Amino acid sequence: MAIVRSALVIGTGLIGTSAALALSGQGVTVYLRDIDPAAARTAAALGAGTLDAPSDAVDLAIVAVSPALVGNVLAAAQAEGAARHYTDVASVKAEPQHEAIALECDTSRYIGGHPMAGAERNGPLAARADLFEGCTWVLAPTSDTETETLNTALELVALCGAVPVVMNAAAHDRGVALVSHMPHVMASLVAARLDAAEDRALSLAGPGVRDVTRIAAAEPALWLAILSANALVVADLLEEVAADLGSAIAGLREMASTDESKRREGRSTVENLLATGRSGRTRISGKHGARTAPYEVVAVRIGDEAGELAKLLTCAGQVGVNIEDVHIDHSDGRGDGLAHLSVTQGSANTLREAFAARGWQL
Amino acid sequence: MAIVRSALVIGTGLIGTSAALALSGQGVTVYLRDIDPAAARTAAALGAGTLDAPSDAVDLAIVAVSPALVGNVLAAAQAEGAARHYTDVASVKAEPQHEAIALECDTSRYIGGHPMAGAERNGPLAARADLFEGCTWVLAPTSDTETETLNTALELVALCGAVPVVMNAAAHDRGVALVSHMPHVMASLVAARLDAAEDRALSLAGPGVRDVTRIAAAEPALWLAILSANALVVADLLEEVAADLGSAIAGLREMASTDESKRREGRSTVENLLATGRSGRTRISGKHGARTAPYEVVAVRIGDEAGELAKLLTCAGQVGVNIEDVHIDHSDGRGDGLAHLSVTQGSANTLREAFAARGWQL
Repeated sequence: MAIVRSALVIGTGLIGTSAALALSGQGVTVYLRDIDPAAARTAAALGAGTLDAPSDAVDLAIVAVSPALVGNVLAAAQAEGAARHYTDVASVKAEPQHEAIALECDTSRYIGGHPMAGAERNGPLAARADLFEGCTWVLAPTSDTETETLNTALELVALCGAVPVVMNAAAHDRGVALVSHMPHVMASLVAARLDAAEDRALSLAGPGVRDVTRIAAAEPALWLAILSANALVVADLLEEVAADLGSAIAGLREMASTDESKRREGRSTVENLLATGRSGRTRISGKHGARTAPYEVVAVRIGDEAGELAKLLTCAGQVGVNIEDVHIDHSDGRGDGLAHLSVTQGSANTLREAFAARGWQL
Repeated sequence: MAIVRSALVIGTGLIGTSAALALSGQGVTVYLRDIDPAAARTAAALGAGTLDAPSDAVDLAIVAVSPALVGNVLAAAQAEGAARHYTDVASVKAEPQHEAIALECDTSRYIGGHPMAGAERNGPLAARADLFEGCTWVLAPTSDTETETLNTALELVALCGAVPVVMNAAAHDRGVALVSHMPHVMASLVAARLDAAEDRALSLAGPGVRDVTRIAAAEPALWLAILSANALVVADLLEEVAADLGSAIAGLREMASTDESKRREGRSTVENLLATGRSGRTRISGKHGARTAPYEVVAVRIGDEAGELAKLLTCAGQVGVNIEDVHIDHSDGRGDGLAHLSVTQGSANTLREAFAARGWQL
């Protein structure tokens, strides 16, 4: 049931070229395009695909440009009828979606995408066919993304060896602010303090500070673009961190007080921060990509109209159930399909009841 | 030229037991002591040493208790004449030294020590003979630490496979605040934000945030003790970080402004932070314990009186030369010795001139 036989990758940086390498390796015909011809040539030389122009619309166009450019590039590609389905790989999802709507793109044929793979290096030369192996790849449907477009994107994710997670654009952007953008700024803040330090002090650096600051080695221009597209969400979160930091500083000063009751208060403030941090850390302590709980699958019959799946996902969101994976099965040859939604075991019944109450056929 | 034939380890936690295991493995007779008899028995059962009391003063007592207790334990051990030389392994050095002076310890026979090895787990069961292999081990002499005490501690460091760095207590404490305590608080601040997050957001967590928060998994009680002993130094440093964080937040908000000149300003603020962070990160990008430059050795003849070495190190400090390693050679059988000071190649001549000007014999 291969849907993706041909693909057009627009933008042959690290992510675009890696996806192209993975697809080419799986027998997909991949066309490459980049405003910088040298980058496209490099990607082609690595075996990522061909520089020839496709003679017909490809199955999937992957817009692999920086977040601020996704809307324009998508609109241009749709105007030339480049592909049957469209996705992107930008690290934020709300802004590209808003742009696509503002530019009157066909959002039913577009689904946002974000492969959560490392970006410490950039450019086609850093690309690898296995870059996405085992990584989470978020898919963010628009309000009217068609099922066929979702399934095409799910096949892209599968061909790249990644794990798909379907999520709306705003939830994605808050999530990545929390687990990626805010931590990046914090790592940069720590590393910035090292810049003016004496050699002697740095000779004491061990694995701890190296871990904390590792991601600060990334390309500033790339991260400026990432932060720029999610700036207010990140600023709000950093505001919360700043409040905690203020208490930590006050607590440490109290710990050095001559007044025993102040010392006790300070110790309690700082210990509380350390304990909350430890508890938060255990929530992501599994191996990268590891799932801690097995999932249960809820199967729902859906029609073939645009927006059917989005309605299903909206309904799940309303009852607070997180969809971990989605697959739509059309294998019975009918126009409609069976949506398989993976959810944590505790929430499968909630979801079944909600769907039944709204008239879906389980 | 073995100086350390017998040792007493007071406190059989992770660090004490690991040092005991390393020494026992090298043929040193190690006596173990802990206020918790079960911890001492566990360490003995692991082969770290014997629970018998030493019949005579040992060569070296290693005080491996938490920073706030070092002074008292050292004073008690010296009062019973437990050893010829004394060191400790606490993660801060100024407070134990002040305590030792306040309690009228014999500071000429004491040198502070801090093996920079991981402390994410605690207790004797986490101990390993190779815990310190390749790690930096700071030695912080008092104003009158004797050469023989320094050399005894240097042998301990060598037996544990670590790399010695001699540094005064205050410089050490500022250094560890920068490369260990402040980063730990920052990791805890990031991890604390994850504690209340939705599962869905955490499913996006990749290797980056795992790196940043890894050290936040450490035992809060242990870190409370570490931070407590260095609280004001850490608070001052976090104050600087808080100022940078405030600019980062303001910059991010400006990046979302409708005013182009504000946006430019915001971008420049944030890009500057990212670039400074990247530059700071490159300063510790070598492998753990790796030396980037080869050292040159400056040899100076010193007398056998207390404080001779301290004078030499003070002189080096005055001319801004960082001593990377020290060894004192008494092998010619005379009372005085030859101090071998390792320094970076650029500073060897500065040091030779300074020593010569002050009448030392090179």
